[in-house]
Amino acid sequence: MRAAIFRSGEIVVGTMPEPKPGAGQVLVKSLACGICGSDLHARKHAHRMVELSKFLPGRAPMDLSRDVVFGHEFCCEILDYGPDTTRKLKPGTRVCSLPAVLTPEGPKGIGYSNDYVGAYAEQMLLSEPLLLEVPNGLAAEHAALTEPLAVGVHAVAMANIRGGEVPLVIGCGPVGLAVIAALKIRGLGPIVAADYSPARRLLAEKMGADVVVDPATTQPYASWAEHAQMTEAEKAARPPMQALLPPLKPALIFECVGVPGVLQQLFEGAPRSARIVVVGVCMETDKSEPMLGIIKELNVQYVLGYTPEEFAYSLRLIAEGQVDAASLVTGRVGIDGVAQAFADLANPEAHTKILVEPWR
Amino acid sequence: MRAAIFRSGEIVVGTMPEPKPGAGQVLVKSLACGICGSDLHARKHAHRMVELSKFLPGRAPMDLSRDVVFGHEFCCEILDYGPDTTRKLKPGTRVCSLPAVLTPEGPKGIGYSNDYVGAYAEQMLLSEPLLLEVPNGLAAEHAALTEPLAVGVHAVAMANIRGGEVPLVIGCGPVGLAVIAALKIRGLGPIVAADYSPARRLLAEKMGADVVVDPATTQPYASWAEHAQMTEAEKAARPPMQALLPPLKPALIFECVGVPGVLQQLFEGAPRSARIVVVGVCMETDKSEPMLGIIKELNVQYVLGYTPEEFAYSLRLIAEGQVDAASLVTGRVGIDGVAQAFADLANPEAHTKILVEPWR
Repeated sequence: MRAAIFRSGEIVVGTMPEPKPGAGQVLVKSLACGICGSDLHARKHAHRMVELSKFLPGRAPMDLSRDVVFGHEFCCEILDYGPDTTRKLKPGTRVCSLPAVLTPEGPKGIGYSNDYVGAYAEQMLLSEPLLLEVPNGLAAEHAALTEPLAVGVHAVAMANIRGGEVPLVIGCGPVGLAVIAALKIRGLGPIVAADYSPARRLLAEKMGADVVVDPATTQPYASWAEHAQMTEAEKAARPPMQALLPPLKPALIFECVGVPGVLQQLFEGAPRSARIVVVGVCMETDKSEPMLGIIKELNVQYVLGYTPEEFAYSLRLIAEGQVDAASLVTGRVGIDGVAQAFADLANPEAHTKILVEPWR
Repeated sequence: MRAAIFRSGEIVVGTMPEPKPGAGQVLVKSLACGICGSDLHARKHAHRMVELSKFLPGRAPMDLSRDVVFGHEFCCEILDYGPDTTRKLKPGTRVCSLPAVLTPEGPKGIGYSNDYVGAYAEQMLLSEPLLLEVPNGLAAEHAALTEPLAVGVHAVAMANIRGGEVPLVIGCGPVGLAVIAALKIRGLGPIVAADYSPARRLLAEKMGADVVVDPATTQPYASWAEHAQMTEAEKAARPPMQALLPPLKPALIFECVGVPGVLQQLFEGAPRSARIVVVGVCMETDKSEPMLGIIKELNVQYVLGYTPEEFAYSLRLIAEGQVDAASLVTGRVGIDGVAQAFADLANPEAHTKILVEPWR
């Protein structure tokens, strides 16, 4: 079969043997697969990714001298079943799955693995117990957005929301947009969002942001503070020692950029007692001033991935039209177009989410 | 009056005018005042302290060209009252207070201020509404330990304890020891604590640590993991996707060292989903690998200070003998001995808490 292969630091087109489904496994055809920011990161920082995985017991690092096929935001079609499967869903059924294969040694990731190819290949293997049938009528290209939406749903779930927080989303790439969508569904607001790109700011509004800010002209924290003023009742309810502090509601900040320096900017700009959820994936060493965290009593929650429940919930949200997934898709390529798409994604005006459709 | 004055980066002995109590204020005599790690930091990094305070609205930075008198861990005796005071406590009464003076512009800190001298001076001003009478019979030198204990009580209160966590305390200086005492009172355990100093490890045991570790010979995280194994019931209750992860109880790690590099060590050593409470005050820029935070979904809570309620509670804990404050005191000096005491505190074998007794 054909695949866009990560080999020697580049994305190349090649062929590889078709996978054979083992016990409990399903052979599927890749219909649509989003290119994730993590794939761009992984291409650039693969060696660091391998190096860092040694700190996580049970997570086998990729062998970069061998081929890897990325692609973990997918919608597929069932082709065939391996042994020990119940085969409840007929071949031809469209399915999503969180990007993991269940093995006797535990779940193994799909997409950053030498053993399990991702959906930039024509075919791949999934685990039958993880299959989610795509609700009737939902296009594969929209179902493929389940995974990035689940990232936002999880980030919001991990934010330890108590009610009354005013959220600020820094960065409106696919991750930031998913966070905005998930916040909207939780009913938290007003949602303030910041991005340098006009196209991304438009999308942020579409996904539910109430206030969008261009950091080049408006300080995001100042805009946030304008929209986070306490009510008179909230002011009156404060303990005496806090009565002279700025009368601001609790801040809940989502870092959705993932480059060095952003966390320090957050430490500088964040109001006292802010909770910061780090969703952007920064693969490089980062510097910050712990004293700023200390004098402001900041909380930093790093998050990754999602639970199976959050994943299934995200597919339902898209299928029920609660999240306008369609507006995120800005391009479609076949296997031959993946390398160029990786380059094109550098321009936020042109692209948000490019889908790989290996059958093209 | 005489005072140990912070002037041009050094601690010198000098005289200054006796303070006059204003409206709502009380003139007190300093009986005993602990030398805090923050005082040592402030002497070394005063300019950074000033620089960082610009990020906190309402906190006036020190003017380092003028004199400052440190000392915020104190027990005092009432000498006289200013106007607009109720004078419920008689002159001669021993009192504690959190180190702040209430002003029309909000609470102002005592001890890192050009306006309000700390308790390394013979006399100082307090706010009448913040006075706490020292319960009858409690020695001033033990009541003076209220403030550092409150730091530990607050750190534990901010740790968002849900029950079932196994705590690990990194660093057993006064801050780490206060955290251990506060954890013991909360009933969380077993408490694992790590410090290179044998004297500090002995004190950690005295304050309630169940397991003490010398990081030079034993990996603190390995020791923690030994004592954090799930019960069979806890193992069975895990969701299927987690069933093959290491069967460890939730980790609650207290960073009580406060030097660059420790947070990165925590990121490397901490188990998945650990919550880290940063109590140690690191005044220098620090580096860490955000990816480690991300792949482990770590939470970092920076903390500072305490609430008035936590402060009052800490005084009660000492007065009721629930915390053995006496064992922390390793030295006593007069005003002339402060500069030498700052130097002596560098040796953890010799000293934990040195008290300044300006009347000596």
